[in-house]
Amino acid sequence: MDYMRILVTGGAGFIGSHMCDRLLQRGNTIWCLDNLRLGRRRNIAHLEIRPDFHFIESDLLNESELRALFADARFDAVFHLAANSDISAGTKDFRLDLDLNQLTTVNVLEAMKAHDVKRLFFASSSAVFGETDELLHEDFGPLLPISFYGASKLAAEAYISVFAHTFGGRAVVLRFPNVVGERATHGVIYDFLRKLEANRAELQVLGDGMQSKPYLYVSDLIDAVLTAWDKADAPYAVYHAAGIGSTSVREIAEIVVAAAGGAGTRIVFTGGDRGWPGDVPRFRYDISRLQALGWHPARHSTDAVRHAVERILANGF
Amino acid sequence: MDYMRILVTGGAGFIGSHMCDRLLQRGNTIWCLDNLRLGRRRNIAHLEIRPDFHFIESDLLNESELRALFADARFDAVFHLAANSDISAGTKDFRLDLDLNQLTTVNVLEAMKAHDVKRLFFASSSAVFGETDELLHEDFGPLLPISFYGASKLAAEAYISVFAHTFGGRAVVLRFPNVVGERATHGVIYDFLRKLEANRAELQVLGDGMQSKPYLYVSDLIDAVLTAWDKADAPYAVYHAAGIGSTSVREIAEIVVAAAGGAGTRIVFTGGDRGWPGDVPRFRYDISRLQALGWHPARHSTDAVRHAVERILANGF
Repeated sequence: MDYMRILVTGGAGFIGSHMCDRLLQRGNTIWCLDNLRLGRRRNIAHLEIRPDFHFIESDLLNESELRALFADARFDAVFHLAANSDISAGTKDFRLDLDLNQLTTVNVLEAMKAHDVKRLFFASSSAVFGETDELLHEDFGPLLPISFYGASKLAAEAYISVFAHTFGGRAVVLRFPNVVGERATHGVIYDFLRKLEANRAELQVLGDGMQSKPYLYVSDLIDAVLTAWDKADAPYAVYHAAGIGSTSVREIAEIVVAAAGGAGTRIVFTGGDRGWPGDVPRFRYDISRLQALGWHPARHSTDAVRHAVERILANGF
Repeated sequence: MDYMRILVTGGAGFIGSHMCDRLLQRGNTIWCLDNLRLGRRRNIAHLEIRPDFHFIESDLLNESELRALFADARFDAVFHLAANSDISAGTKDFRLDLDLNQLTTVNVLEAMKAHDVKRLFFASSSAVFGETDELLHEDFGPLLPISFYGASKLAAEAYISVFAHTFGGRAVVLRFPNVVGERATHGVIYDFLRKLEANRAELQVLGDGMQSKPYLYVSDLIDAVLTAWDKADAPYAVYHAAGIGSTSVREIAEIVVAAAGGAGTRIVFTGGDRGWPGDVPRFRYDISRLQALGWHPARHSTDAVRHAVERILANGF
């Protein structure tokens, strides 16, 4: 494979920074764009001395800066991970996810078309499906999102579909599950650790703790992205990745308390079947399409959670 | 059924004006909002003397006007038909359909939430599916639009799903097929009549004429909308309606030439399997869900086309 000039949007974020690490390891030159809204400079501090890594603090909603960057850097590909990845933050606001997840994507696609950049990776989400007990294959319908996060990711997918089917682009979409690991900037483990820091006597858990999802360790996710990227055999290819098994919020709370709480930490549940309106309490992913390409997660869901707690505590949060 | 105070967006357009007619016949009071971009004042001229009909020339992208209207009129329901319904117009522009189809919808949803309006009808489209030979049930996946029109309608559906599933709204979505009838402001019949008016010797047809779709007469469509509206039994309900059978563009050209051409009019095809990039050359709809609610189209597809040509010629275009 030829080395490429790659733009990683959201590259200073949790998953984006791991993406930069791995794309650099493969010999690519990276432009890491981040507005540092959720991303953190310290996630990429170890990369900033490298000559093949360029950090650009910019916002994808700033179209003129984006056009100038594309004109200057002559990208071969874009890994578009920038987003409001904090689902609960968007539950009351019709515009937050629309702007940060969808309109950023439209701006990226416009810039790609204008500068003839053909290859795109897009970080989508299981939230596009909404709430269903069915096993979710990539071609499953109907898609009935219950959060603006899910709606905006679905909308972004739709625009990427047009880009791939009408403008000769090639796009790989991976619908991320819940991903855990060091450098997380939010999410359930992060929240629990923060809460324990403030009050070691009690950990309050939103919902009844029975929400249960297939957590994936971030390194397994990056493997999934690169497997899909290398082996996708259609101009528009969608994949699911998830950890094997699933882990309840109650189990996560117990793991976090065991690692960071004290002997007397009580776990208290607020009740209700979900953490917030728009939270999908459980889902099940069919990952056979990506497995058929050779991807297999190294860690089961609960192992991924346990390892993430250790690594986050070791790295600071 | 209680009479309602209903906002019809795009109410001066082709389908919107028929929607106003029928909702008024049922005893409702109508606020018809249109920016007159595609809509025409003459489509509603026969309604403007009625005390139960109010025309508002405004653009849904003007949020302050929209809020003021909602505050003033205290709607019970919204029939949201405003859109860029001219698919080919949006093929080169990433923003046209995004603004006119999706962001207008987001504005309507925000206004509905702010003013506690719970009931919505939304005019979606078969274009959400993209290109497939499968029989399209409402729950079919994957949805891979190939036009910004299709992408923007899918995105709008996604936001409406959140509205219905999270904010206690009730939404009925009908994915329109190709609809024909008097007051059309664009579309294949309208285009052919315009072309013949300019040059009676030759009718140029985009593509090879083999594109074939299930055309629906506008009165059958309005019946479908009202059947779905009256009988939908879920907070978020999606339906398909289409004419029985399908009609090729070649057949439409022949019908139009027979009605409005001359003995010597030649039909010339530009070639290629579609009229423009983003045009879906054929699709097949499963309409059993709406039929189970009692809806049946009065006209088969080719009858609908033939009747539409007659009515458009009689009414002027």
